[in-house]
Amino acid sequence: MGNMYKLILLRHGESQWNLENRFTGWVDVPLSENGIAEAKRAGEILKANSLYPDFLFTSFLQRSIATAFYCLEAEGRGWIDVKRSWRLNERHYGALQGKNKEEVRKEVGDEQFMLWRRSYATPPDPIEAGSQFDQQGDPKYSFVPRTESLKDVLERLEPYWYGEIVPELVKEKLVMVCAHGNSLRALIKKLNHLSPEEVQKLNLPTAKPMLFELDRDLEVVSEKHLEL
Amino acid sequence: MGNMYKLILLRHGESQWNLENRFTGWVDVPLSENGIAEAKRAGEILKANSLYPDFLFTSFLQRSIATAFYCLEAEGRGWIDVKRSWRLNERHYGALQGKNKEEVRKEVGDEQFMLWRRSYATPPDPIEAGSQFDQQGDPKYSFVPRTESLKDVLERLEPYWYGEIVPELVKEKLVMVCAHGNSLRALIKKLNHLSPEEVQKLNLPTAKPMLFELDRDLEVVSEKHLEL
Repeated sequence: MGNMYKLILLRHGESQWNLENRFTGWVDVPLSENGIAEAKRAGEILKANSLYPDFLFTSFLQRSIATAFYCLEAEGRGWIDVKRSWRLNERHYGALQGKNKEEVRKEVGDEQFMLWRRSYATPPDPIEAGSQFDQQGDPKYSFVPRTESLKDVLERLEPYWYGEIVPELVKEKLVMVCAHGNSLRALIKKLNHLSPEEVQKLNLPTAKPMLFELDRDLEVVSEKHLEL
Repeated sequence: MGNMYKLILLRHGESQWNLENRFTGWVDVPLSENGIAEAKRAGEILKANSLYPDFLFTSFLQRSIATAFYCLEAEGRGWIDVKRSWRLNERHYGALQGKNKEEVRKEVGDEQFMLWRRSYATPPDPIEAGSQFDQQGDPKYSFVPRTESLKDVLERLEPYWYGEIVPELVKEKLVMVCAHGNSLRALIKKLNHLSPEEVQKLNLPTAKPMLFELDRDLEVVSEKHLEL
């Protein structure tokens, strides 16, 4: 497998709102204590597998930034260069951002709830203007969606994949992308040519690194969840 | 001062070996608990001064990497891109690396001690081959010195200054360089055209950000230590 491109995907560790069972999206919630511990463990997992990333990409959200920091620090690999982008951010959850998942489920029923969470092209209602959970006006963003489907996420992620990530990958670097449940699901949908139905079933555990090997056409040759 | 280039210099927070009073150099020692707190405070200082870095440079050493992480996380600015280089590393302390400063002082006397610590062009003896405090063979380094004077530090830092840091500075970005007592002293010597005698007296406190404003010839127009 010497001439495969190697890509590590890492979903961030548990955040404060994973713990509180709230829809997060673009809300910039920190890691929980457990999330920090998970991130360090991800670094031990990379080390145990002799996988030393050469270049890091993260989203603009602190839970992915901090996960990558604690992971790479634990591996002794914190010194690699980093690029970050809103294009790797979690799916914008629209009007659901900040809400408790269980309360929303009770309010709208199971079917609507699962449609918002798992359907490929149906976004939740847009976030209300002036909501405390809206990032409009945050100077780090040139663009803030009002809501997003997984399809929207893939569409804003694709230019970054080809424009920034692939150029590092093809330098024979081991590239790590530390991002979010849905931005990584969107990327894996693309890499594995999954149908909307197939991607519905895909669920990524927090802070468990995955290794993808890609051929020269960027087609997936192998993928695995890494273990200690 | 609108058309000045703005540069923030930040020496890392207290490391475990600052605490133990040992010569550190290129040995990759973590921050102490106090050093982490100092780094977070540096972020509060930047925020209180409305200084939001757009681009970060650090050395390859975890004490500068972690200082910048905790600082920018505290400021809500962790999402900026980062480049790192061994050229920003602390001065290599040669045979002194790992040794207790007080013991060395007793052993060699005040004069020799201060010569090694503060002279511009006199390096300590080279590190012994096979020392546990030698970084030779560490794959992140293309080059590891055996010892360095402050002059040597400036010489290896200059190509990085013009090659990587200045190109970001002239994009009108607020650039932050998080590095070490001696790599920052070398840079300030250059920026302020200090004589070897003048730079001897220059000592930077840990984790206190400094703001430099440079004109279009990269000459220092103003400098200050930032406070809360």
